[in-house]
Amino acid sequence: MLEQFKKHLNKFITVSDGEFEAIAGYFEMQTLKKKENLLTEGQVCKASYFVLEGILRKFFINEKGVQQTTEFAIENWWMTETFSYINQTPTEFYIQSVQASQVLIIRQKAYDDLLEKHPVMERYFRMVYQKAYAAAQMRVKMLYEHSREELYRQFLKNQPAFLQRVPQYLIASYLGFTPEYLSEIRKKNFS
Amino acid sequence: MLEQFKKHLNKFITVSDGEFEAIAGYFEMQTLKKKENLLTEGQVCKASYFVLEGILRKFFINEKGVQQTTEFAIENWWMTETFSYINQTPTEFYIQSVQASQVLIIRQKAYDDLLEKHPVMERYFRMVYQKAYAAAQMRVKMLYEHSREELYRQFLKNQPAFLQRVPQYLIASYLGFTPEYLSEIRKKNFS
Repeated sequence: MLEQFKKHLNKFITVSDGEFEAIAGYFEMQTLKKKENLLTEGQVCKASYFVLEGILRKFFINEKGVQQTTEFAIENWWMTETFSYINQTPTEFYIQSVQASQVLIIRQKAYDDLLEKHPVMERYFRMVYQKAYAAAQMRVKMLYEHSREELYRQFLKNQPAFLQRVPQYLIASYLGFTPEYLSEIRKKNFS
Repeated sequence: MLEQFKKHLNKFITVSDGEFEAIAGYFEMQTLKKKENLLTEGQVCKASYFVLEGILRKFFINEKGVQQTTEFAIENWWMTETFSYINQTPTEFYIQSVQASQVLIIRQKAYDDLLEKHPVMERYFRMVYQKAYAAAQMRVKMLYEHSREELYRQFLKNQPAFLQRVPQYLIASYLGFTPEYLSEIRKKNFS
Protein backbone atom coordinates (compact mmCIF):
# COMPACT_ATOMS: atom_id res chain seq x y z
CA MET A 1 0.00 0.00 0.00
CA LEU A 2 2.90 2.35 0.69
CA GLU A 3 4.11 1.72 -2.85
CA GLN A 4 0.92 3.46 -4.01
CA PHE A 5 1.67 6.54 -1.89
CA LYS A 6 5.25 6.62 -3.21
CA LYS A 7 3.98 6.53 -6.80
CA HIS A 8 1.56 9.32 -5.98
CA LEU A 9 4.30 11.46 -4.36
CA ASN A 10 6.56 11.03 -7.35
CA LYS A 11 3.93 12.63 -9.57
CA PHE A 12 4.60 15.89 -7.71
CA ILE A 13 8.14 15.69 -6.37
CA THR A 14 11.26 13.54 -6.68
CA VAL A 15 11.97 11.37 -3.66
CA SER A 16 14.70 8.74 -3.47
CA ASP A 17 13.92 5.30 -2.01
CA GLY A 18 15.91 6.18 1.09
CA GLU A 19 14.12 9.47 1.66
CA PHE A 20 10.73 7.87 1.03
CA GLU A 21 11.44 5.32 3.74
CA ALA A 22 12.16 8.15 6.19
CA ILE A 23 9.03 10.06 5.06
CA ALA A 24 6.80 6.99 5.40
CA GLY A 25 7.81 6.77 9.06
CA TYR A 26 5.68 9.85 9.82
CA PHE A 27 2.47 8.16 8.67
CA GLU A 28 0.21 5.58 10.28
CA MET A 29 -2.08 3.22 8.42
CA GLN A 30 -5.67 2.64 9.52
CA THR A 31 -8.40 0.32 8.28
CA LEU A 32 -11.95 1.65 8.52
CA LYS A 33 -15.27 -0.12 8.44
CA LYS A 34 -18.15 1.42 6.54
CA LYS A 35 -19.48 4.60 8.22
CA GLU A 36 -16.64 4.91 10.71
CA ASN A 37 -15.99 8.47 11.93
CA LEU A 38 -12.50 9.91 11.77
CA LEU A 39 -13.76 13.25 13.07
CA THR A 40 -17.00 14.30 14.74
CA GLU A 41 -18.57 17.70 15.37
CA GLY A 42 -17.08 19.45 18.40
CA GLN A 43 -13.66 17.78 18.19
CA VAL A 44 -10.53 19.65 17.16
CA CYS A 45 -9.12 18.26 13.91
CA LYS A 46 -5.56 17.13 14.57
CA ALA A 47 -4.76 14.95 11.55
CA SER A 48 -4.94 14.66 7.76
CA TYR A 49 -6.09 11.55 5.93
CA PHE A 50 -4.86 10.16 2.63
CA VAL A 51 -7.16 7.61 1.01
CA LEU A 52 -5.37 4.44 -0.10
CA GLU A 53 -8.57 2.53 -0.76
CA GLY A 54 -12.25 3.36 -0.41
CA ILE A 55 -14.07 6.68 -0.02
CA LEU A 56 -14.30 9.31 2.71
CA ARG A 57 -16.81 12.12 2.92
CA LYS A 58 -17.07 15.34 4.87
CA PHE A 59 -20.47 16.54 6.04
CA PHE A 60 -22.16 18.77 8.58
CA ILE A 61 -25.57 18.49 10.17
CA ASN A 62 -27.73 21.39 9.09
CA GLU A 63 -30.39 23.28 11.03
CA LYS A 64 -33.03 20.78 9.98
CA GLY A 65 -30.93 17.92 11.41
CA VAL A 66 -30.08 16.64 7.92
CA GLN A 67 -26.56 15.53 6.93
CA GLN A 68 -25.20 17.85 4.25
CA THR A 69 -22.22 16.35 2.37
CA THR A 70 -19.72 18.96 1.17
CA GLU A 71 -16.81 16.84 -0.06
CA PHE A 72 -15.75 13.34 -1.10
CA ALA A 73 -12.24 11.86 -1.26
CA ILE A 74 -11.40 8.72 -3.22
CA GLU A 75 -8.04 6.96 -3.74
CA ASN A 76 -5.01 9.28 -3.76
CA TRP A 77 -6.91 12.26 -2.35
CA TRP A 78 -6.39 14.00 0.94
CA MET A 79 -9.17 14.78 3.38
CA THR A 80 -8.98 16.98 6.46
CA GLU A 81 -10.90 19.79 8.13
CA THR A 82 -8.39 22.55 7.50
CA PHE A 83 -10.22 25.38 9.28
CA SER A 84 -10.35 23.50 12.60
CA TYR A 85 -6.83 22.16 12.00
CA ILE A 86 -5.23 25.58 11.47
CA ASN A 87 -7.15 27.44 14.17
CA GLN A 88 -7.38 24.55 16.65
CA THR A 89 -11.04 25.27 17.17
CA PRO A 90 -13.86 22.69 17.49
CA THR A 91 -15.04 21.55 14.07
CA GLU A 92 -18.59 21.80 12.70
CA PHE A 93 -17.92 18.83 10.39
CA TYR A 94 -17.77 15.05 10.39
CA ILE A 95 -15.29 12.99 8.37
CA GLN A 96 -16.61 9.47 7.76
CA SER A 97 -15.86 6.44 5.59
CA VAL A 98 -18.52 5.81 2.94
CA GLN A 99 -17.41 2.19 2.53
CA ALA A 100 -14.71 -0.02 4.09
CA SER A 101 -11.54 2.00 3.50
CA GLN A 102 -7.85 2.17 4.20
CA VAL A 103 -6.17 5.48 4.97
CA LEU A 104 -2.78 6.91 5.79
CA ILE A 105 -2.94 9.26 8.75
CA ILE A 106 -0.51 12.01 9.52
CA ARG A 107 -1.01 13.69 12.89
CA GLN A 108 -0.27 17.37 13.43
CA LYS A 109 3.00 16.91 15.36
CA ALA A 110 4.28 14.38 12.79
CA TYR A 111 3.23 16.74 9.96
CA ASP A 112 5.16 19.65 11.46
CA ASP A 113 8.22 17.44 12.05
CA LEU A 114 8.01 15.95 8.56
CA LEU A 115 7.96 19.40 6.92
CA GLU A 116 10.91 20.53 9.01
CA LYS A 117 13.04 17.46 8.28
CA HIS A 118 11.98 16.98 4.64
CA PRO A 119 11.38 20.39 3.03
CA VAL A 120 10.57 18.66 -0.27
CA MET A 121 7.25 17.82 1.39
CA GLU A 122 6.49 21.55 1.69
CA ARG A 123 6.53 21.57 -2.10
CA TYR A 124 4.26 18.53 -2.26
CA PHE A 125 1.69 19.91 0.20
CA ARG A 126 1.83 23.35 -1.43
CA MET A 127 0.76 21.68 -4.68
CA VAL A 128 -1.91 19.58 -2.94
CA TYR A 129 -3.44 22.63 -1.27
CA GLN A 130 -3.17 24.69 -4.44
CA LYS A 131 -5.19 22.02 -6.27
CA ALA A 132 -7.66 21.68 -3.40
CA TYR A 133 -8.17 25.44 -3.38
CA ALA A 134 -8.71 25.47 -7.15
CA ALA A 135 -11.36 22.75 -6.81
CA ALA A 136 -13.08 24.61 -3.95
CA GLN A 137 -13.13 27.82 -5.99
CA MET A 138 -14.89 26.06 -8.87
CA ARG A 139 -17.29 24.48 -6.39
CA VAL A 140 -18.25 27.91 -5.04
CA LYS A 141 -18.88 29.03 -8.63
CA MET A 142 -21.07 25.99 -9.29
CA LEU A 143 -23.12 26.59 -6.15
CA TYR A 144 -23.84 30.14 -7.31
CA GLU A 145 -24.38 29.39 -10.93
CA HIS A 146 -26.43 26.31 -11.37
CA SER A 147 -29.83 25.08 -10.48
CA ARG A 148 -29.85 21.80 -8.53
CA GLU A 149 -30.65 19.86 -11.67
CA GLU A 150 -27.75 21.41 -13.57
CA LEU A 151 -25.46 20.59 -10.64
CA TYR A 152 -26.43 16.96 -11.09
CA ARG A 153 -25.74 17.06 -14.82
CA GLN A 154 -22.33 18.67 -14.23
CA PHE A 155 -21.53 16.06 -11.61
CA LEU A 156 -22.60 13.31 -14.01
CA LYS A 157 -20.27 14.75 -16.66
CA ASN A 158 -17.26 15.47 -14.45
CA GLN A 159 -17.41 12.71 -11.86
CA PRO A 160 -18.82 9.55 -13.44
CA ALA A 161 -16.59 7.38 -11.17
CA PHE A 162 -18.33 8.76 -8.10
CA LEU A 163 -21.77 7.99 -9.41
CA GLN A 164 -20.79 4.37 -9.84
CA ARG A 165 -19.42 4.01 -6.34
CA VAL A 166 -21.25 6.36 -4.01
CA PRO A 167 -24.75 5.46 -2.77
CA GLN A 168 -27.53 7.56 -4.28
CA TYR A 169 -28.60 9.14 -1.00
CA LEU A 170 -25.06 10.53 -0.53
CA ILE A 171 -25.00 11.98 -4.04
CA ALA A 172 -28.30 13.63 -3.15
CA SER A 173 -26.79 14.96 0.07
CA TYR A 174 -23.80 16.36 -1.81
CA LEU A 175 -26.00 18.12 -4.34
CA GLY A 176 -28.33 19.39 -1.65
CA PHE A 177 -31.56 17.68 -2.59
CA THR A 178 -33.69 14.85 -1.29
CA PRO A 179 -33.19 11.25 -2.51
CA GLU A 180 -36.72 11.41 -3.98
CA TYR A 181 -35.87 14.45 -6.09
CA LEU A 182 -32.63 12.80 -7.27
CA SER A 183 -34.57 9.74 -8.30
CA GLU A 184 -36.96 11.93 -10.34
CA ILE A 185 -34.08 13.70 -12.11
CA ARG A 186 -32.38 10.41 -12.87
CA LYS A 187 -35.52 9.06 -14.47
CA LYS A 188 -35.77 12.18 -16.60
CA ASN A 189 -32.10 12.04 -17.66
CA PHE A 190 -32.11 8.38 -18.53
CA SER A 191 -35.47 8.13 -20.18
CA MET B 1 5.52 49.25 0.13
CA LEU B 2 7.91 46.31 0.00
CA GLU B 3 8.46 46.73 3.73
CA GLN B 4 4.80 45.76 4.15
CA PHE B 5 5.29 42.54 2.17
CA LYS B 6 8.40 41.71 4.21
CA LYS B 7 6.48 42.18 7.45
CA HIS B 8 3.72 39.95 6.07
CA LEU B 9 6.19 37.23 5.02
CA ASN B 10 7.83 37.22 8.43
CA LYS B 11 4.51 36.30 10.01
CA PHE B 12 4.82 32.92 8.25
CA ILE B 13 8.53 32.30 7.69
CA THR B 14 11.89 33.73 8.69
CA VAL B 15 13.67 35.60 5.91
CA SER B 16 16.90 37.56 6.36
CA ASP B 17 17.24 41.06 4.85
CA GLY B 18 19.55 39.69 2.19
CA GLU B 19 17.24 36.86 1.19
CA PHE B 20 14.24 39.19 1.15
CA GLU B 21 16.03 41.45 -1.28
CA ALA B 22 16.60 38.48 -3.59
CA ILE B 23 12.97 37.33 -3.19
CA ALA B 24 11.59 40.81 -3.91
CA GLY B 25 13.34 40.71 -7.28
CA TYR B 26 10.80 38.15 -8.53
CA PHE B 27 7.88 40.54 -8.05
CA GLU B 28 6.64 43.51 -10.03
CA MET B 29 4.60 46.36 -8.64
CA GLN B 30 1.52 47.69 -10.42
CA THR B 31 -0.82 50.59 -9.73
CA LEU B 32 -4.45 50.07 -10.73
CA LYS B 33 -7.24 52.52 -11.30
CA LYS B 34 -10.72 51.72 -10.09
CA LYS B 35 -12.33 48.87 -12.11
CA GLU B 36 -9.19 47.87 -13.92
CA ASN B 37 -9.09 44.24 -15.07
CA LEU B 38 -6.11 42.04 -14.21
CA LEU B 39 -7.78 39.04 -15.81
CA THR B 40 -10.76 38.69 -18.13
CA GLU B 41 -12.89 35.72 -19.16
CA GLY B 42 -11.22 33.60 -21.85
CA GLN B 43 -7.64 34.48 -20.88
CA VAL B 44 -5.28 31.99 -19.28
CA CYS B 45 -4.31 33.12 -15.79
CA LYS B 46 -0.52 33.41 -15.67
CA ALA B 47 0.09 35.44 -12.51
CA SER B 48 -0.80 35.85 -8.84
CA TYR B 49 -1.59 39.19 -7.20
CA PHE B 50 -0.79 40.34 -3.68
CA VAL B 51 -2.77 43.38 -2.53
CA LEU B 52 -0.58 46.10 -0.99
CA GLU B 53 -3.35 48.68 -0.97
CA GLY B 54 -6.96 48.67 -2.10
CA ILE B 55 -9.35 45.85 -2.93
CA LEU B 56 -9.59 43.26 -5.70
CA ARG B 57 -12.55 41.07 -6.49
CA LYS B 58 -13.10 37.94 -8.52
CA PHE B 59 -16.37 37.49 -10.40
CA PHE B 60 -17.94 35.64 -13.28
CA ILE B 61 -20.81 36.61 -15.54
CA ASN B 62 -23.73 34.29 -14.99
CA GLU B 63 -26.29 33.00 -17.49
CA LYS B 64 -28.46 36.05 -16.95
CA GLY B 65 -25.53 38.31 -17.84
CA VAL B 66 -25.15 39.47 -14.24
CA GLN B 67 -21.76 39.80 -12.52
CA GLN B 68 -21.53 37.30 -9.66
CA THR B 69 -18.75 38.15 -7.19
CA THR B 70 -17.20 35.10 -5.54
CA GLU B 71 -14.21 36.54 -3.68
CA PHE B 72 -12.65 39.76 -2.38
CA ALA B 73 -9.01 40.41 -1.45
CA ILE B 74 -7.93 43.34 0.72
CA GLU B 75 -4.43 44.32 1.94
CA ASN B 76 -2.07 41.39 2.54
CA TRP B 77 -4.24 38.89 0.70
CA TRP B 78 -3.46 36.99 -2.44
CA MET B 79 -5.77 36.78 -5.42
CA THR B 80 -5.43 34.52 -8.44
CA GLU B 81 -7.53 32.15 -10.54
CA THR B 82 -5.89 28.93 -9.45
CA PHE B 83 -7.88 26.54 -11.65
CA SER B 84 -6.90 28.30 -14.88
CA TYR B 85 -3.37 28.86 -13.52
CA ILE B 86 -2.72 25.19 -12.76
CA ASN B 87 -4.41 23.73 -15.83
CA GLN B 88 -3.46 26.52 -18.25
CA THR B 89 -7.02 26.64 -19.53
CA PRO B 90 -9.08 29.75 -20.36
CA THR B 91 -10.65 31.21 -17.24
CA GLU B 92 -14.36 31.79 -16.64
CA PHE B 93 -13.55 34.59 -14.19
CA TYR B 94 -12.57 38.24 -14.07
CA ILE B 95 -10.18 39.75 -11.53
CA GLN B 96 -10.77 43.49 -11.14
CA SER B 97 -9.84 46.34 -8.79
CA VAL B 98 -12.79 47.61 -6.73
CA GLN B 99 -11.02 50.90 -6.04
CA ALA B 100 -7.63 52.41 -6.92
CA SER B 101 -5.18 49.75 -5.74
CA GLN B 102 -1.55 48.76 -5.66
CA VAL B 103 -0.54 45.15 -6.13
CA LEU B 104 2.55 42.98 -6.27
CA ILE B 105 2.49 40.65 -9.25
CA ILE B 106 4.37 37.41 -9.58
CA ARG B 107 4.22 35.81 -13.01
CA GLN B 108 4.23 32.04 -13.48
CA LYS B 109 7.84 31.73 -14.67
CA ALA B 110 9.09 33.97 -11.84
CA TYR B 111 6.98 31.97 -9.34
CA ASP B 112 8.49 28.67 -10.46
CA ASP B 113 12.01 30.12 -10.36
CA LEU B 114 11.42 31.72 -6.95
CA LEU B 115 10.28 28.42 -5.44
CA GLU B 116 13.26 26.61 -6.91
CA LYS B 117 15.83 29.13 -5.67
CA HIS B 118 14.16 29.94 -2.34
CA PRO B 119 12.50 26.78 -0.96
CA VAL B 120 11.44 28.73 2.14
CA MET B 121 8.79 30.25 -0.15
CA GLU B 122 7.32 26.77 -0.68
CA ARG B 123 6.56 26.83 3.03
CA TYR B 124 5.03 30.30 2.78
CA PHE B 125 2.80 29.45 -0.18
CA ARG B 126 1.84 26.10 1.37
CA MET B 127 0.52 28.05 4.37
CA VAL B 128 -1.20 30.65 2.18
CA TYR B 129 -2.99 27.97 0.15
CA GLN B 130 -3.84 25.97 3.26
CA LYS B 131 -5.56 29.07 4.68
CA ALA B 132 -7.24 29.89 1.38
CA TYR B 133 -8.56 26.33 1.16
CA ALA B 134 -9.86 26.50 4.75
CA ALA B 135 -11.71 29.74 3.93
CA ALA B 136 -13.18 28.25 0.73
CA GLN B 137 -14.35 25.16 2.65
CA MET B 138 -16.23 27.34 5.15
CA ARG B 139 -17.66 29.37 2.25
CA VAL B 140 -19.05 26.20 0.65
CA LYS B 141 -20.64 25.32 4.00
CA MET B 142 -22.20 28.79 4.27
CA LEU B 143 -23.63 28.58 0.77
CA TYR B 144 -25.35 25.30 1.65
CA GLU B 145 -26.45 26.25 5.10
CA HIS B 146 -27.83 29.71 5.15
CA SER B 147 -30.62 31.63 3.59
CA ARG B 148 -29.53 34.77 1.73
CA GLU B 149 -30.57 36.93 4.65
CA GLU B 150 -28.55 34.85 7.10
CA LEU B 151 -25.54 35.08 4.76
CA TYR B 152 -25.78 38.84 5.05
CA ARG B 153 -25.96 38.71 8.84
CA GLN B 154 -22.93 36.40 8.97
CA PHE B 155 -21.04 38.70 6.64
CA LEU B 156 -21.99 41.68 8.81
CA LYS B 157 -20.65 39.86 11.86
CA ASN B 158 -17.45 38.43 10.35
CA GLN B 159 -16.44 41.06 7.83
CA PRO B 160 -17.41 44.51 9.13
CA ALA B 161 -14.33 46.06 7.44
CA PHE B 162 -15.61 45.00 4.01
CA LEU B 163 -19.01 46.56 4.59
CA GLN B 164 -17.34 49.89 5.31
CA ARG B 165 -15.21 49.82 2.19
CA VAL B 166 -16.99 47.88 -0.53
CA PRO B 167 -19.87 49.49 -2.47
CA GLN B 168 -23.31 48.11 -1.63
CA TYR B 169 -23.96 46.70 -5.09
CA LEU B 170 -20.81 44.56 -4.83
CA ILE B 171 -21.81 43.23 -1.42
CA ALA B 172 -25.13 42.31 -3.01
CA SER B 173 -23.31 40.61 -5.89
CA TYR B 174 -21.15 38.62 -3.44
CA LEU B 175 -24.18 37.47 -1.49
CA GLY B 176 -26.10 36.66 -4.62
CA PHE B 177 -29.00 39.08 -4.39
CA THR B 178 -30.13 42.29 -6.01
CA PRO B 179 -29.14 45.72 -4.62
CA GLU B 180 -32.85 46.35 -3.95
CA TYR B 181 -33.15 43.24 -1.79
CA LEU B 182 -29.97 44.17 0.11
CA SER B 183 -31.37 47.61 0.77
CA GLU B 184 -34.56 46.02 2.17
CA ILE B 185 -32.61 43.72 4.49
CA ARG B 186 -30.43 46.59 5.68
CA LYS B 187 -33.48 48.62 6.61
CA LYS B 188 -34.86 45.67 8.55
CA ASN B 189 -31.59 45.05 10.39
CA PHE B 190 -30.97 48.63 11.35
CA SER B 191 -34.49 49.66 12.26
